[in-house]
Amino acid sequence: MKVEFWYEFASTYSYPAAMRAAREAGAAGVELVWRPFLLGPIFGAQGWNDSPFNIYPAKGRYMWRDMARICEAEGLTLEKPAIFPQNGLRAARLAVLGTDEDWMPEFSRRVYLANFAEGKDISDRAVLSAILTSLDLDAASLVEAANEQAAKDKLRAQNEEAVAKGIFGAPSFIVGDELFWGNDRMEEAFAWAKR
Amino acid sequence: MKVEFWYEFASTYSYPAAMRAAREAGAAGVELVWRPFLLGPIFGAQGWNDSPFNIYPAKGRYMWRDMARICEAEGLTLEKPAIFPQNGLRAARLAVLGTDEDWMPEFSRRVYLANFAEGKDISDRAVLSAILTSLDLDAASLVEAANEQAAKDKLRAQNEEAVAKGIFGAPSFIVGDELFWGNDRMEEAFAWAKR
Repeated sequence: MKVEFWYEFASTYSYPAAMRAAREAGAAGVELVWRPFLLGPIFGAQGWNDSPFNIYPAKGRYMWRDMARICEAEGLTLEKPAIFPQNGLRAARLAVLGTDEDWMPEFSRRVYLANFAEGKDISDRAVLSAILTSLDLDAASLVEAANEQAAKDKLRAQNEEAVAKGIFGAPSFIVGDELFWGNDRMEEAFAWAKR
Repeated sequence: MKVEFWYEFASTYSYPAAMRAAREAGAAGVELVWRPFLLGPIFGAQGWNDSPFNIYPAKGRYMWRDMARICEAEGLTLEKPAIFPQNGLRAARLAVLGTDEDWMPEFSRRVYLANFAEGKDISDRAVLSAILTSLDLDAASLVEAANEQAAKDKLRAQNEEAVAKGIFGAPSFIVGDELFWGNDRMEEAFAWAKR
């Protein structure tokens, strides 16, 4: 059974999840479907106009320490972005354009590295263009396409699907009708897919 | 190194954590210290006058489904309490009275069973007295002592310590200066204690 991996480019715990998801899915023998979405509208609908990690300081302090432990264990660089959360809208529109394309998972991983390891602004066209170019893609036309209505509609539809499926945070995993929330539940989601 | 297990009697995820904590700590070879506290004042300080699982319905729906999966895997009965969250104040005062007493972990487990498996009201003196009596304790004098200022002060001090240690949810595990939040992080906390 397929496992849908729902992620948001601004989401901290989505970073280690994205970096290991394909590897772990391969090891578990499950098919992974990458589903970018935006947490902003979902948080906004429940009255948050910022990350809960900023709104609730104790939770935020814990999250950054927890992320440091997780990234150290995974051998991942973690550098707290100057602005958190970053605006992942443009990156998410590019990622939905890449649905069904081979480059899309690696594009997603490089956006996460830019955000959480390299101190880059992932809302910046130049940063995203450089990532696309590094993947031998036509950055100019993809960035252009990401600005068009079709890409906006596709991402909006994907977000509506996330809400309909009960998603309220990232990363989330969907297996049939089952939702699993959090990087630390990836293995459980994969095990569920193999039941 | 010791591992502090911080739990709240009204907290759903603290239930499976409490039921397996002593067994897992024994298997891991770490010393477990049971630390009951109250989430109400901590949630209140961040503007919540109810459980976040009630305030945020998508999160609540997920939690009950997730709890059902966890309890099934652990062989634990789960019956959603008629009132959620229950008032765990009296049970917590009894538990702090039992700090350093052999009966306290088993008392705590039986309160969780009453709350989440047996449909009982854990704020009810009769329910708590029956649990104490089932442990061959003098229920009347313990329930009386739990109403005295010393027990109230002890629980309040314990809550202040929880806040000082950065705790914002339950269950939580403290190992030295490290905080781990969630039933699903118990193993990681125990592994940290053995580093």
